[in-house]
Amino acid sequence: MSAAASPAMLVSEVGPRDGLQSIQRTMPTADKLRWITALHAAGVREIEVGSFVPPALLPQMADTAEVVAHALTLPGLIVAALAPNLRGAQAAFAAGVHKLTIPVSVTEAHSLANVRKTHEQVFTDLAAISALKREQYPQVELEAGLSVAFGCTLAGPVSDDDTLHIAERAAAAGVDVVGLSDTSGYAEPRQVRRLFTRLASELGNRAGGAHFHNTRGQGLANVLAAIEAGVTTFDASRGGIGGCPYAPGASGNIVTEDLVFLLEAMGFSTGIDVERLIAARRVVQEALAGEPLYGMVAEAGLPKGFTYATQQALTAA
Amino acid sequence: MSAAASPAMLVSEVGPRDGLQSIQRTMPTADKLRWITALHAAGVREIEVGSFVPPALLPQMADTAEVVAHALTLPGLIVAALAPNLRGAQAAFAAGVHKLTIPVSVTEAHSLANVRKTHEQVFTDLAAISALKREQYPQVELEAGLSVAFGCTLAGPVSDDDTLHIAERAAAAGVDVVGLSDTSGYAEPRQVRRLFTRLASELGNRAGGAHFHNTRGQGLANVLAAIEAGVTTFDASRGGIGGCPYAPGASGNIVTEDLVFLLEAMGFSTGIDVERLIAARRVVQEALAGEPLYGMVAEAGLPKGFTYATQQALTAA
Repeated sequence: MSAAASPAMLVSEVGPRDGLQSIQRTMPTADKLRWITALHAAGVREIEVGSFVPPALLPQMADTAEVVAHALTLPGLIVAALAPNLRGAQAAFAAGVHKLTIPVSVTEAHSLANVRKTHEQVFTDLAAISALKREQYPQVELEAGLSVAFGCTLAGPVSDDDTLHIAERAAAAGVDVVGLSDTSGYAEPRQVRRLFTRLASELGNRAGGAHFHNTRGQGLANVLAAIEAGVTTFDASRGGIGGCPYAPGASGNIVTEDLVFLLEAMGFSTGIDVERLIAARRVVQEALAGEPLYGMVAEAGLPKGFTYATQQALTAA
Repeated sequence: MSAAASPAMLVSEVGPRDGLQSIQRTMPTADKLRWITALHAAGVREIEVGSFVPPALLPQMADTAEVVAHALTLPGLIVAALAPNLRGAQAAFAAGVHKLTIPVSVTEAHSLANVRKTHEQVFTDLAAISALKREQYPQVELEAGLSVAFGCTLAGPVSDDDTLHIAERAAAAGVDVVGLSDTSGYAEPRQVRRLFTRLASELGNRAGGAHFHNTRGQGLANVLAAIEAGVTTFDASRGGIGGCPYAPGASGNIVTEDLVFLLEAMGFSTGIDVERLIAARRVVQEALAGEPLYGMVAEAGLPKGFTYATQQALTAA
């Protein structure tokens, strides 16, 4: 594969956060560190390593500051975390994260259920977090991650205007970038193309990446639609951890190996070695024995004669 | 849902053929009939019900003539079958199928492994089958299904020119339509878009549908690319039967429920009721107890507030 200095597509691994917080068991800290090291060794250049939330709510994330400290030792890695409020953001900034995502629900119903706050309260918090960042941590990239941007299990369908309205409010609150999340697997490709096209046209260089779940199998079709709308950053989870153990294939996030295969096969360089990524699966299997892992490429392997994308191939495409 | 007289997209169910021939066990004939009846009741308008092959090679398909006879009693159903040679085609025509697919490998390596014939022998056979059809069964739609059209587990990468060359030879042999199959999960969306665009431009109204596998998770992304190239017929398999039992999610064909959800969510009417399709899963579960079934929508259900496409919505899209 090419040793691309600047990958054409940024694959952001969210397994240590979104994957691990979705399962009951807690992965021991030492295993998290081994896992993150293995992901980095496979070429992953951004990892959301945890969430700064009260341990009483999510004990799986209690060691996030320690995990961040380890991740910061890995050369070239963008260390990302999530925080649901100002207190969490303070802890994340203090821990030294490079990127911080604040979840902002597009529907108030989801906001109340997820963070127990109205939109007004969320945006007040977001403005305070943005101010703190500007004053003391200007080097951190602050992202608003718009939950249920394509549909909501509580409120049902979500209009494009509703999502764009929340995106604009988040940008106005001072974040650097606004990403769109399909939290519950509602998105379809035409909607994805429309929304990311409008996000880019209305937010310019504050338009962020896509966070898709594969709840209804449509995750990679939505990735293709987002690529067509100019998106270059995609969240994904190693092994698709977080899927329901009683639902074969019903993964949470889209699966990193499958995403990387799709992007590389299409000619977009990711800097990631699929086979080393598959090998890193072993760390998770050992640390969470019996936990079902998802994904097709890990089972099927790469096609015979497969070649990774190069920057040249991308330019030619 | 809309009672669309002419669905905007034709979903062709291949589970009773491609799914059942991929597993060791044989589904009892009575269960096949129940299954096909349930699929028809869910709104499926084309079913590949079996394969006319020597029972010694594929005992799972030994009852295909009987299955065809039952399927022919279901109003409005296009009854399709597969045959690998002239003798099988004669049996299929005699059984009264509406559509017959002859597999034609793009690579000679796959042709020799799959049907033990060189390209020359395959095209001689295909010309004889086409002549028989023209003379005695002009009402049957004869399709050449191009295996390994996007890549081959034996020969590796396949060039666009190779696939188009075989497509043209198949058309010249007299078939009505030429479809492209991603037999081993090699296809990526740009290749899919290029190949189906060229197929349409070089074969005109003889350009056929897409038969995708989901081997590396890319099946529905390839569907999206094929839609963009004008494809309107897609093969899929109920429950994704045929996947390896040791590989969660490693399905064979793309899964019918997931495909129908994607198409309807995008505004393309299929005439199929997803919930009745999910209910039909029970027949397979009873008949093949313990056999793993795949698919996300069957586990997740439809999104809250989901509406089926209507012909009006399609026109407006």
